Amino acid sequence: MISRQQLIQQIKQKKTFLCVGLDTDVDKIPEFLKEYPDPAFEFNKRIIDATKDLCIAYKPNAAFYESRGMKGLQSLISTYEYLPKDCLSIIDAKRGDIGNTSDNYAKAFFNEDVTGMGFDAITVTPYMGNDSVTPYLKYDGKWVIILALTSSVGSKDFQYLNTGEGYLYETVIQKANTWAGVDRLMFVVGATKSTEFTNIRQYAPDNFLLVPGVGAQGGSLEEVCKYGITKDCGLIVNASRSIIYASNGEDFAEAARAEALSLQQQMQAELEKAGVI
Amino acid sequence: MISRQQLIQQIKQKKTFLCVGLDTDVDKIPEFLKEYPDPAFEFNKRIIDATKDLCIAYKPNAAFYESRGMKGLQSLISTYEYLPKDCLSIIDAKRGDIGNTSDNYAKAFFNEDVTGMGFDAITVTPYMGNDSVTPYLKYDGKWVIILALTSSVGSKDFQYLNTGEGYLYETVIQKANTWAGVDRLMFVVGATKSTEFTNIRQYAPDNFLLVPGVGAQGGSLEEVCKYGITKDCGLIVNASRSIIYASNGEDFAEAARAEALSLQQQMQAELEKAGVI
Repeated sequence: MISRQQLIQQIKQKKTFLCVGLDTDVDKIPEFLKEYPDPAFEFNKRIIDATKDLCIAYKPNAAFYESRGMKGLQSLISTYEYLPKDCLSIIDAKRGDIGNTSDNYAKAFFNEDVTGMGFDAITVTPYMGNDSVTPYLKYDGKWVIILALTSSVGSKDFQYLNTGEGYLYETVIQKANTWAGVDRLMFVVGATKSTEFTNIRQYAPDNFLLVPGVGAQGGSLEEVCKYGITKDCGLIVNASRSIIYASNGEDFAEAARAEALSLQQQMQAELEKAGVI
Repeated sequence: MISRQQLIQQIKQKKTFLCVGLDTDVDKIPEFLKEYPDPAFEFNKRIIDATKDLCIAYKPNAAFYESRGMKGLQSLISTYEYLPKDCLSIIDAKRGDIGNTSDNYAKAFFNEDVTGMGFDAITVTPYMGNDSVTPYLKYDGKWVIILALTSSVGSKDFQYLNTGEGYLYETVIQKANTWAGVDRLMFVVGATKSTEFTNIRQYAPDNFLLVPGVGAQGGSLEEVCKYGITKDCGLIVNASRSIIYASNGEDFAEAARAEALSLQQQMQAELEKAGVI
């Protein structure tokens, strides 16, 4: 369990707010790993070993494991077990359902005794309203990370609809912030929307924002920080493909480290510029 | 694979548009089943055997299986394998993510060769726009069932926001109907909102609607049909708890059948009233 205070402390100590996204696709990992009994886990293990001093969070994307059935779930469970306990562990699951169903998704990812997974945080889609969120909050100290503004093309379809009180994503942030405090709730905001951060900080001045889209999706770290950083940092910036697939040779872990190090150094500069450290 | 034409044919032949929701909670199933190696599957098997002539679809709710980790996933796979192939198999997964992630969720539930599951249809949450939907449409003949108006309390939070062109859920239906035809796209509309069906039929005159909320959640079948039925039926009404937990004794399968039969008889009357049969 990682509290807000612990998260901020980690960011200051490690001088980074990087999250490494473990979107591990067995078709993209180096050939030589395929001889191991669980190639995806073997890959993740080496990525984790190579990056754990450079990041403060890991985010396995559930879809990449579910797409391999039982074997994939085993890789996910083994990966969870291997995650360093001082890093925030986020399951990127994007679930969203009515109360008694969400209760079960919460068990799936939070109840380690039963499923072998006890992530610190889960991503959730808000369409079904507070039902989608409150079941996760019953678990003391666990985080819910709600989709607000995503980095995908499809974000234009609904997230920018005007609800009379602003864009839909703004309404989502305002309403969700009445359900829980900044010690339990974060929002997903795509890095490709950096100019929107000023706007978002009006409604979420203190929430941590999980920011995908730096790297492969083309978002700029500098822009994100310019508009989004707070005195406590308030940002967790995720990079997945640009780190984990930096090389597909035997040197993939070193290449991942080099990529993570470059991001960490940029992040350190941003933290210094903003006076966080 | 069940095409629209086959679905309509099944409805006419069996005189029912019932979907049995397999929200199987191992804490709620009869004690005596717990001696079997896979109690949840054993329960589902008997429910399926007892109801398959009375319904045209089955809908396992992924959360109830995921909450039991590896064992739960095995129960889900075994249940999928056991589903009668003339019934529409729906995985109630409520996923929604960007393109390359949705690709993987599609593999998880549609790619039987890899995961052991090849459902006909998946429920999807629309917040991320067309990214959330199009990856599933790449699989020929598979259905996407998009959340529109849900039966939960939280539906008030966002689904009823006015987007300038009507409620958000209306905009979702209108826009989604530009992504695929009525042979590939359905919408989830809660039975507790029966008066809204008139409205929904303006935007989705021919789509099949998956209607949860009859039974345990208090929706009325008569009301749903009054406002929602079409010349092709156009409705798949789901009941989960009211059927599968009709009894928790040794007679649970008979009790489930009695409950399903009562619904089938009401449905037959509605189909006759509407001139579908």
